[in-house]
Amino acid sequence: MSGKISPSMMCVDFRKLEESVRALERAGTDYLHFDVMDGHFVPNFTLGPDFIRCVREMTSIPFDFHLMVERPESLLSVFDIREGDIVSVHQEASVHLQRTLQHIRDKGARPSVALNPATPLYAVDEVLDDLELVLVMTVNPGFAGQKLVPSTLRKIAGLKERLTASGRPDIEIEVDGNVSWDNALKMRQAGADIFVAGTSSIFTPGTDIEEATKRFKTSIL
Amino acid sequence: MSGKISPSMMCVDFRKLEESVRALERAGTDYLHFDVMDGHFVPNFTLGPDFIRCVREMTSIPFDFHLMVERPESLLSVFDIREGDIVSVHQEASVHLQRTLQHIRDKGARPSVALNPATPLYAVDEVLDDLELVLVMTVNPGFAGQKLVPSTLRKIAGLKERLTASGRPDIEIEVDGNVSWDNALKMRQAGADIFVAGTSSIFTPGTDIEEATKRFKTSIL
Amino acid sequence: MSGKISPSMMCVDFRKLEESVRALERAGTDYLHFDVMDGHFVPNFTLGPDFIRCVREMTSIPFDFHLMVERPESLLSVFDIREGDIVSVHQEASVHLQRTLQHIRDKGARPSVALNPATPLYAVDEVLDDLELVLVMTVNPGFAGQKLVPSTLRKIAGLKERLTASGRPDIEIEVDGNVSWDNALKMRQAGADIFVAGTSSIFTPGTDIEEATKRFKTSIL
Amino acid sequence: MSGKISPSMMCVDFRKLEESVRALERAGTDYLHFDVMDGHFVPNFTLGPDFIRCVREMTSIPFDFHLMVERPESLLSVFDIREGDIVSVHQEASVHLQRTLQHIRDKGARPSVALNPATPLYAVDEVLDDLELVLVMTVNPGFAGQKLVPSTLRKIAGLKERLTASGRPDIEIEVDGNVSWDNALKMRQAGADIFVAGTSSIFTPGTDIEEATKRFKTSIL
Amino acid sequence: MSGKISPSMMCVDFRKLEESVRALERAGTDYLHFDVMDGHFVPNFTLGPDFIRCVREMTSIPFDFHLMVERPESLLSVFDIREGDIVSVHQEASVHLQRTLQHIRDKGARPSVALNPATPLYAVDEVLDDLELVLVMTVNPGFAGQKLVPSTLRKIAGLKERLTASGRPDIEIEVDGNVSWDNALKMRQAGADIFVAGTSSIFTPGTDIEEATKRFKTSIL
Amino acid sequence: MSGKISPSMMCVDFRKLEESVRALERAGTDYLHFDVMDGHFVPNFTLGPDFIRCVREMTSIPFDFHLMVERPESLLSVFDIREGDIVSVHQEASVHLQRTLQHIRDKGARPSVALNPATPLYAVDEVLDDLELVLVMTVNPGFAGQKLVPSTLRKIAGLKERLTASGRPDIEIEVDGNVSWDNALKMRQAGADIFVAGTSSIFTPGTDIEEATKRFKTSIL
Repeated sequence: MSGKISPSMMCVDFRKLEESVRALERAGTDYLHFDVMDGHFVPNFTLGPDFIRCVREMTSIPFDFHLMVERPESLLSVFDIREGDIVSVHQEASVHLQRTLQHIRDKGARPSVALNPATPLYAVDEVLDDLELVLVMTVNPGFAGQKLVPSTLRKIAGLKERLTASGRPDIEIEVDGNVSWDNALKMRQAGADIFVAGTSSIFTPGTDIEEATKRFKTSIL
Repeated sequence: MSGKISPSMMCVDFRKLEESVRALERAGTDYLHFDVMDGHFVPNFTLGPDFIRCVREMTSIPFDFHLMVERPESLLSVFDIREGDIVSVHQEASVHLQRTLQHIRDKGARPSVALNPATPLYAVDEVLDDLELVLVMTVNPGFAGQKLVPSTLRKIAGLKERLTASGRPDIEIEVDGNVSWDNALKMRQAGADIFVAGTSSIFTPGTDIEEATKRFKTSIL
Repeated sequence: MSGKISPSMMCVDFRKLEESVRALERAGTDYLHFDVMDGHFVPNFTLGPDFIRCVREMTSIPFDFHLMVERPESLLSVFDIREGDIVSVHQEASVHLQRTLQHIRDKGARPSVALNPATPLYAVDEVLDDLELVLVMTVNPGFAGQKLVPSTLRKIAGLKERLTASGRPDIEIEVDGNVSWDNALKMRQAGADIFVAGTSSIFTPGTDIEEATKRFKTSIL
Repeated sequence: MSGKISPSMMCVDFRKLEESVRALERAGTDYLHFDVMDGHFVPNFTLGPDFIRCVREMTSIPFDFHLMVERPESLLSVFDIREGDIVSVHQEASVHLQRTLQHIRDKGARPSVALNPATPLYAVDEVLDDLELVLVMTVNPGFAGQKLVPSTLRKIAGLKERLTASGRPDIEIEVDGNVSWDNALKMRQAGADIFVAGTSSIFTPGTDIEEATKRFKTSIL
Repeated sequence: MSGKISPSMMCVDFRKLEESVRALERAGTDYLHFDVMDGHFVPNFTLGPDFIRCVREMTSIPFDFHLMVERPESLLSVFDIREGDIVSVHQEASVHLQRTLQHIRDKGARPSVALNPATPLYAVDEVLDDLELVLVMTVNPGFAGQKLVPSTLRKIAGLKERLTASGRPDIEIEVDGNVSWDNALKMRQAGADIFVAGTSSIFTPGTDIEEATKRFKTSIL
Repeated sequence: MSGKISPSMMCVDFRKLEESVRALERAGTDYLHFDVMDGHFVPNFTLGPDFIRCVREMTSIPFDFHLMVERPESLLSVFDIREGDIVSVHQEASVHLQRTLQHIRDKGARPSVALNPATPLYAVDEVLDDLELVLVMTVNPGFAGQKLVPSTLRKIAGLKERLTASGRPDIEIEVDGNVSWDNALKMRQAGADIFVAGTSSIFTPGTDIEEATKRFKTSIL
């Protein structure tokens, strides 16, 4: 599978929002990644529907929603989810995961399950039919700027193997958390397909976003 | 008391963030209002610390935080609160309200209690010594664009009277929710001091923010 | 105000459901009362939408829903609420009480706030414009067959007085909990308007429901 | 193992409750299935102890309780559980599952763990000694009338295999959710032993319950 | 009313437990005060039933339980409550306060409601018949060694007045939080009857507990 | 691995605290075990930071904290955790387990995950790099004096095997719950390394703690 990049909009310089979106468009980004936090599933807050709607008006790049919220099933409706978007909900956050994934598919979006570093791979065994992606958290979610949890590299490889063995090698693996230039290469080798790029790669202060995104695509993907 | 305006940053056109902040500065805004939602206390999401930090880097206007979150005491630390800022926490959201207000004061900020439309005024009786403002919600919090709950006009007047009777006429009354040109006048007459201006006044699509903010200050405050 | 009776359907002999509904119709009952419990707000369970729908198909008597559930705002939609029905939600169960009452009114039903025995009357001060009734619990909710909390008689009288003083003598007072023949008389004298009749009056085993309901109406109301 | 049927009492015509119970008795039903919902674990409500007690007085058929509630351990005591009844609690609803199963066994009832569609089979690995049944949800619980989650057929077969491999082929597999005539056959072939029959089989409007139950027993079990 | 002292056992030197209890007995203490914390209602932990049982075996001094826990109604049963003990539950922690107070009375103990500094006095209006004491928190509960919230002195006086006006001057007022020698005098003047003595009076390191307790009784009570 | 003993301080005679600690020191105990309960994760309470600090002042034996609390990540800071201590948090109590274990390691303590009897071994698959121990609960946590859940013996053996197969035979297995003389031997044979000794062994009433601890070390470890 060819790799894809999903720049994290929570790392953008909000003063240059449109400019940044245009740079990402020119660089051929595959997705724009939006983190949503509820202060309970994770002890922090980020972006909401109004901000996301504003970016939607600027561009037709598909969106990549990462809902770090408890009981996501009751909050899906506040977002403007469109065909081709990715929507990731956490396995640890809902006891009705299959229903939530089905709702996402019903909207034409690509259903994805996010797994915290401690969550075993077995957790997705019964929802493989309902998924197009698995989002492997490579740090504990909630904050930008954290260091990679090293064992997650092995986890990516284990997931790749497991998906292939289950007859679903087409399910993509997304990675989020300290996706630096170095780590991205290792993650790619381990089997990752979609990369959430943040402050440790294309949004490092002083970086030219367009150039860096292009470089990411050529050197990693 | 002279009135003050606190434009709601969740209503800004995020594509023109810096431009909008500059317009508000030129118009002499008193505060910038930031709504924070947790998807639980209210069923929606808005802005978070990264966005707020970005605006802080642009301007020295004091900030007006409205935390629509459960257990705000455990989430205060994720925000960069500064001297002279307002921080409003909901009476309905915490059983240790006095401690939370004290923490806000310890940071040099102005402690405020927010009251939902249904919450009785008596709820603040024992924290008058710990307050500089009361934020009277004039709609149920969680969404922009709602209609005024009419009885809240009477509630503002009742609060004004109660504060005066308690020897604390200096406590300011802030109002948030459908603060339109018409409603703002009635709220001012009822005793409101600080006005959260949103889509029904200065952020109505097509409006010149600078001109509208100036007009708000001269015609209402 | 003329008194009304609202027989508690959780006390009916479910083997004789239609027969009982017919007897209540013939006796001229004003409402049919349905208790809904969530095992959390109260540690018990009772009836749900399927059962209630079944009764709806039998009769056009208006329904009187008593939702003993946490966060009723998110559960209103599972019930078939119609014009003229009463819907009571607990003041202790929601921080967005005004919005919930407004939703009930939007459906054409009669909004009501229920108060547990320990809840002060002041709790409804700011929602008087949004109410048609107040439901005073005269036992702690959750179980049939409990004994009257004596101080609630004084509470009914206090509420009557308070509603009159607030210019809303038209708001009806409903009572629920150990409404026996004796207690009902005292409650009526204290100012109660609507009586939830259960096992301590018309549903006492061995009682003829039709005759007892008629007697309740003539002797108490 | 010979198959068993457990008609869902939430699908009965409540106007004909006794008549329906008699028809089920004559048809030789194995269990009567009672759904209990708390509005939190699932966003709906159904039946409670009073209704269930009323049916108990009519018949000696063993009962099959399905508790779709959070923290079932603290709510077991509100039900009249008897020797030979089945009691299913959800794996996702309690962190003290072994204790809850032990309590059920102490009452002489048959302990069962219910699994939502997304829950992996591994979840019951450590409680096989404490179980007599596993209830495989073939739809997401909370509502009647849903469509089968197709992957659950494979899950039933996987569970059968796993139980046999663990030396516990005697543990029965119960299925609940869209158990139509067609699906029931497939579920039987996959290894299901007990079938919760609802609106998609014996309770389809217009069906003769007695005849349909007999037919279910002969054609499926 | 003559004043009473209730030394806080969480402040005792646990190495000298029996010795301390004997000193308190000789000094004529009225109660022994036990704080119970659940890590949720307050973010800390203290003592539990095993420790309390151990002290019970040493002495016949009545116990004074202060339950700083959510939903105390479901946790009362883990404590060995005896006739003449005080049991305080928080108004903010339970929506079925009257039932909880009734349970405490049924055990022969003295029911008490605890109020956080921010909680209005009106909160106890409807439970005056069910109370023998009100516990006014003079700091926010959860930690020893905090400073007095000054407005709570006025609150004590307001409560005294309110109880007298309600015809219940016999209800005792207990105070807990920074009950130093100086503050105790002011609290006594404001109307407090029972004093929880901790590290700021009789348990100040280096103090002779027996002598200090006697001095507290003669100088303050 | 040589076995270790960790006497449960909740079982000590609190009247003889120092004496007991000295006896355990003389007997060469490896750890002192402290149970912390929050009334929610388990329906009971035990010991808190003040008590634990008092014991710390008496001895330099490393401590073994067992946190039976929800969301332990937000409560770690109330404890004085030191280098060489064990800190066990429950897998069922946190969705950010890896972060919590990392925090424990950052304090120099030994990170451990506790598993309830029903929790599958797979639950720790992804945190093996972050662990030094696994605490296998051999009863359901919350109360002393319970009987062994027999299947947990097999679970210990399964875990041993799994750790060895994963290349981490150095991870120690701790056992807690009905560790009687008989059971301890079986647990040792199954692979347990650290034994929480309570009322069914060294704290049986009438036992000489020093002698019993020595005997435990020689006969079991």
